[in-house]
Amino acid sequence: MSRLLLNCDIGESFGNWTMGLDAEVMPFIDCANVACGFHAGDPSIMRKTVSLALKHGVQIGAHPAYQDLQGFGRRSMAYSPEEIQDLLHYQIGALDGICRAQGARVSYVKPHGALYNDMMAKPAQLRAVMQAIAAYDASLPLMLLATRDNSAAQVMGDEYGLTLWFEAFADRAYDSHGHLVSRQLPGAVHHDADTVLQQALTIARGEPLTASDGSALVLQANTLCVHGDNASSIAAVQRIRAALTSA
Amino acid sequence: MSRLLLNCDIGESFGNWTMGLDAEVMPFIDCANVACGFHAGDPSIMRKTVSLALKHGVQIGAHPAYQDLQGFGRRSMAYSPEEIQDLLHYQIGALDGICRAQGARVSYVKPHGALYNDMMAKPAQLRAVMQAIAAYDASLPLMLLATRDNSAAQVMGDEYGLTLWFEAFADRAYDSHGHLVSRQLPGAVHHDADTVLQQALTIARGEPLTASDGSALVLQANTLCVHGDNASSIAAVQRIRAALTSA
Amino acid sequence: MSRLLLNCDIGESFGNWTMGLDAEVMPFIDCANVACGFHAGDPSIMRKTVSLALKHGVQIGAHPAYQDLQGFGRRSMAYSPEEIQDLLHYQIGALDGICRAQGARVSYVKPHGALYNDMMAKPAQLRAVMQAIAAYDASLPLMLLATRDNSAAQVMGDEYGLTLWFEAFADRAYDSHGHLVSRQLPGAVHHDADTVLQQALTIARGEPLTASDGSALVLQANTLCVHGDNASSIAAVQRIRAALTSA
Amino acid sequence: MSRLLLNCDIGESFGNWTMGLDAEVMPFIDCANVACGFHAGDPSIMRKTVSLALKHGVQIGAHPAYQDLQGFGRRSMAYSPEEIQDLLHYQIGALDGICRAQGARVSYVKPHGALYNDMMAKPAQLRAVMQAIAAYDASLPLMLLATRDNSAAQVMGDEYGLTLWFEAFADRAYDSHGHLVSRQLPGAVHHDADTVLQQALTIARGEPLTASDGSALVLQANTLCVHGDNASSIAAVQRIRAALTSA
Repeated sequence: MSRLLLNCDIGESFGNWTMGLDAEVMPFIDCANVACGFHAGDPSIMRKTVSLALKHGVQIGAHPAYQDLQGFGRRSMAYSPEEIQDLLHYQIGALDGICRAQGARVSYVKPHGALYNDMMAKPAQLRAVMQAIAAYDASLPLMLLATRDNSAAQVMGDEYGLTLWFEAFADRAYDSHGHLVSRQLPGAVHHDADTVLQQALTIARGEPLTASDGSALVLQANTLCVHGDNASSIAAVQRIRAALTSA
Repeated sequence: MSRLLLNCDIGESFGNWTMGLDAEVMPFIDCANVACGFHAGDPSIMRKTVSLALKHGVQIGAHPAYQDLQGFGRRSMAYSPEEIQDLLHYQIGALDGICRAQGARVSYVKPHGALYNDMMAKPAQLRAVMQAIAAYDASLPLMLLATRDNSAAQVMGDEYGLTLWFEAFADRAYDSHGHLVSRQLPGAVHHDADTVLQQALTIARGEPLTASDGSALVLQANTLCVHGDNASSIAAVQRIRAALTSA
Repeated sequence: MSRLLLNCDIGESFGNWTMGLDAEVMPFIDCANVACGFHAGDPSIMRKTVSLALKHGVQIGAHPAYQDLQGFGRRSMAYSPEEIQDLLHYQIGALDGICRAQGARVSYVKPHGALYNDMMAKPAQLRAVMQAIAAYDASLPLMLLATRDNSAAQVMGDEYGLTLWFEAFADRAYDSHGHLVSRQLPGAVHHDADTVLQQALTIARGEPLTASDGSALVLQANTLCVHGDNASSIAAVQRIRAALTSA
Repeated sequence: MSRLLLNCDIGESFGNWTMGLDAEVMPFIDCANVACGFHAGDPSIMRKTVSLALKHGVQIGAHPAYQDLQGFGRRSMAYSPEEIQDLLHYQIGALDGICRAQGARVSYVKPHGALYNDMMAKPAQLRAVMQAIAAYDASLPLMLLATRDNSAAQVMGDEYGLTLWFEAFADRAYDSHGHLVSRQLPGAVHHDADTVLQQALTIARGEPLTASDGSALVLQANTLCVHGDNASSIAAVQRIRAALTSA
């Protein structure tokens, strides 16, 4: 079983508003996807988040988003590919600036919310994201969704000389294409802790999941997305971490 | 006469709003103070501005500000020293990200508007700015106001190992302390083109200006702040550039 | 020939940025679509804009938009119908607050940019807009695009007891459905002053235009959208106003 | 004992971020100071907040602020008196728009955070606030801090024909001028539930408090500011409400 990195969205507080249990989840993850100010996070939150990640030896990823604080970056917005590159450079750079002041660097990129979804749905958006990272620093891996067949993304990544980190979800149901079942549908999210743990281990072993239509689905994943929202999600991360370590 | 760099605030458009004649003034300046999104500028404007500066071989300076788009960064805001460091790291980093995608780097820092004024008025703010630059990259010069006696700033700069670039104004009247006469007062701004040109040359030669109380004032300046607002300010820059070159 | 109101987007400056020749165009229009702070305009700009409209006896319309200052409200954003109602109430109310302080009131509503386009393309969005106005003040007319057949919108407007003001464009080409030809296509915008004037008069007379496929197109329009962007658009408004008055 | 209204800051969530236990505190208060989008609150949060207040028959007050979401409106900003009027009209109007869609109206105004502090410290700011309310609707009471001597504010209020609602705090220590002891100083905030309850009753009875220098301090207060931040502050409100009711 190859090593499966645990990644988590982090630093999504803003000003006086707190979101997520960053300090509680940080000890159990490998990669912190740090909000860069466009959907969450502000310069001071970012400084504290980077400091916390460094304390725990967690890799710092830029988690850039569309500029929509009220919508938490979850509303699709009609940006052009060139504008997408601009907002990536701005946000990755901003986080890198915060990192640099602490002797650290951004080490990968994971787009957030609607930007992530649009990138998975539209090749032109994915290309814009890849082009942006390649122009900024082609050594930074791009984190994106593992699906049944990662080859199209892989071909495009090769074109730009990028490392791709495919991520899977232990707490979400998949359809036969290896896409996440929409949260609007019943059974989209696994709430049972054992189901989540088993799905994490199945993914880690490279064994097939059962898709929503009953078909077998093998996901080639480098990383698992976990959550630090509340006490029960922290408990889930802890169990996954322990199981992966002992496996 | 040592070389006096010409610096100019640039990239202060935002979204659909245009401000300044950036393309017209760029050929005549040495240093472009590029807005970083908090008082003006947005990621796409910043990309175009950096590209324009590179085309003309102009140094790119970060021009960070308080976060106040509507007030254009000109309203003083009660940020703590630590918050000031955070917003500097964020904005310098963001511009550096835009630069990096074009193979360039930020090469100095000039705070904008109320942040600049507060930094000149309050040592704790100046210290925060210097600490921020030192932590980010101590090789980046800080641009600040030349006054009658630059020694206090110089001592603090030495403490952080920073290069200071003192700037003077050719179109503004000075009081006996070497502070700019408030724009609220009559005679604060020189509108006559010859007066402006003569003041530029006097500063470049290190000769004394006449302060508002009639006293002699020698400014030790590394750079002169010029403006690209409109056709007449472009003409002034052009004349100053020509006179400095032939001098 | 029934009276054709001239409406114009107004108050689209923001902070230190100026856009449009509001003072120049105001004397020639009937209805000012005033930006409400989400795509342009800020409280102080709005106060000045309302004051200018009152001076010229021009009706003040709320011109609400998606919250996207950088994109000038021109990027479609995935707001829910309920959120659309909320942002309309907020923005109409805000402008009404500015008006009230000057003894005036908002007298109609014209959605801006992507909100306007989405409303014309998706019945659920149009319904949200109508529901919002009906809940706020059903006596406020809604301004929307006149097409070949206004009946579907009219039926929905009747359902909410709303007055609809259909608007037409003198400077844009129409397709056979009475939709504006996309600006991406050649011939979408009329640049010839006489063509613009003739189209204005044709619309005012209720006579048929020639659509892009050569078919005849009659638009039932209550108002004509004019522009105050620059000197030539002001001249066009002036000519249209003079022609409509003498007709 | 005349009736002492309980007022509470409400609706200070924003987008996906939640702040305060609005639903829990609403049943026990008389007046909800509703954030208007500049320091907290967004159009959808405002709609839900107004709906909650109406359900409990609580008066809806506009709680306008400087435009500083990241600083939660707590940083002083250098607005001119005219700009202060503009931002008040905008925000009161926006909340009134949200109210109107639910058949309600704003019924008083309480400035927030740094705007409140600046208004209490600088007569020109207080005048701007009063002028703004008078121009909007002189029947809306202004909520401001009760001090040892309310007469200067009262004289100014009379000039504008405004009703003033002076507010006191049960959980804060006062100095001999009747100003709140700075939170930076020890003993500024009462943490003991009985002390808080006693101070509430003392204020309600119009009896003297003991100021920080030991002197007697009588506050003429119309309303008491309570908090809905967490379970213990809700418990405090409940006890105060019960004690005031039975008194």
